[in-house]
Amino acid sequence: MKPILFYAPGACSLASHIALVEAGADFELRLVRLAKAEQRTPDYLQVNPKGRVPALVTERGVLTENPAILAYVAQNWPETGLGPIGDPWAMAEVNAFNSFLCSSVHVAFAHIFRPGRYADGDAAARAMREKSPQSLDDFFVLIEAKLEAGLWIHGDSFSVSDPYLYLFSRWFQRDGMGHPERFPRVRAHMERVHARPATQNALAAEALTGN
Amino acid sequence: MKPILFYAPGACSLASHIALVEAGADFELRLVRLAKAEQRTPDYLQVNPKGRVPALVTERGVLTENPAILAYVAQNWPETGLGPIGDPWAMAEVNAFNSFLCSSVHVAFAHIFRPGRYADGDAAARAMREKSPQSLDDFFVLIEAKLEAGLWIHGDSFSVSDPYLYLFSRWFQRDGMGHPERFPRVRAHMERVHARPATQNALAAEALTGN
Repeated sequence: MKPILFYAPGACSLASHIALVEAGADFELRLVRLAKAEQRTPDYLQVNPKGRVPALVTERGVLTENPAILAYVAQNWPETGLGPIGDPWAMAEVNAFNSFLCSSVHVAFAHIFRPGRYADGDAAARAMREKSPQSLDDFFVLIEAKLEAGLWIHGDSFSVSDPYLYLFSRWFQRDGMGHPERFPRVRAHMERVHARPATQNALAAEALTGN
Repeated sequence: MKPILFYAPGACSLASHIALVEAGADFELRLVRLAKAEQRTPDYLQVNPKGRVPALVTERGVLTENPAILAYVAQNWPETGLGPIGDPWAMAEVNAFNSFLCSSVHVAFAHIFRPGRYADGDAAARAMREKSPQSLDDFFVLIEAKLEAGLWIHGDSFSVSDPYLYLFSRWFQRDGMGHPERFPRVRAHMERVHARPATQNALAAEALTGN
C-alpha cells in the first residue's frame, strides 16, 4: 500500500505534507475537515486516537506528531538529503529545533486558535490571546538569530525543519499573532520555502492560496 | 571534554539524566536552581537562550529538548539498545511518543505548575488548573492502553521513552493532577522504571527521594 497522509488544509500537517513531496514519496492524501470535527469521528479516532492531524498511515502502522514524521521522512528517503541522518549529533539539532517548534511555537499558536484546549471560559481565552503574541515574538527572536547562519534554518542545507518553520511563519503573518514585521530573516526564509516546487505542489493539493 | 547536563532536580531534565546513566555515558551534572531563577541568568542564557532545562553541552555544541536528547542518546550509545536505531519506522514510533509527551503531556502539567507561561492573572491560572487535570486523564487513557502491549511503553524492549514517561508518571501522582488511581498499568510501569539501577542512581544524584 501507498502511505496515506491525513491532513487538514493549512493545519500543521502541511509541514509533513511538504516534506513528503520534497522526498519524492509516492503517497495519498486524505482530507480531515476540522470545521466538521471529522478529527473526532470514530473512524478517524481509529486512525489517530489523539484526534489530531497529521497521521501517516504506512504498512507498519500509523505515525503521528510532526517531529517524528519529519525525522522519518529524512531517514526513509535518505537520497533526498532532507536531514543529516548519518550524523547523530547534527540530526539531534534538527530534532531539537522541530521539538521546539512543536512544544513551544505551535503551543503558543494553539492558545490563540484553540484556547478551549487549555482552559474553559471567555475570560481565560482572552488572557491567553493577550499573552501568546508576546511568547511568539520571543520565540521568533530566537529563530531570527538562528537564521543568521545561512539560507536555511540549519545553515546551508535545506532540511525537514524548513517546511516546518515555514508553516509557523505563515501563521505568524496573520493579524493578532505578534510582530512579524520585526523579523525580516523569518520572512525571507518563508518566501524562500514558499517558492520551492514541493511547497507549491503541496499548497495546490491542499487548495491553499496566498502565502 | 565530557558532556555536561544542565538539570534541575525533579524537572523534566530527569528523563535525559536517567537515559544518559542507562547509556553508561561519562558526563557531568550541573545544577540549575529554578527557585533562584538561575535559568534566566545571563550565564545560563548563553548555554540555552530558551532559559529551560535540560541542556546537554557537548564538544559539538549545545543540545536542548528532551525528545532530541533522548534520540541522540539512543543513537550515540547504540550498544546499550535504548532505541531501535537501525529501524527508521520503529525509531519514529519512539520519537512520536516522546513528542506527544513533550508537546501534550508536559504542556498540560506546565499549565498547572507555570500558568504564567501561558496567560497572566489569577483567574486565568485557576481556569488552566481546572482544565489540565482533565487533559492529563485523557492523555493517560491513551498511555494506559499503550501499556497493554508489554512491560515497556514500546513493548518488550526498554527504550529512552520509558524514563521520559516515568518522569510524567511521577508528576501525575501529585495532588490535583487528575486521577492517577485509574491507571494501574501506568503505576506499575512507573515502579518498574523506578526500580532500575540507572533511575536510582539519577534520583540520588539529584538528591530526590520517594517516588
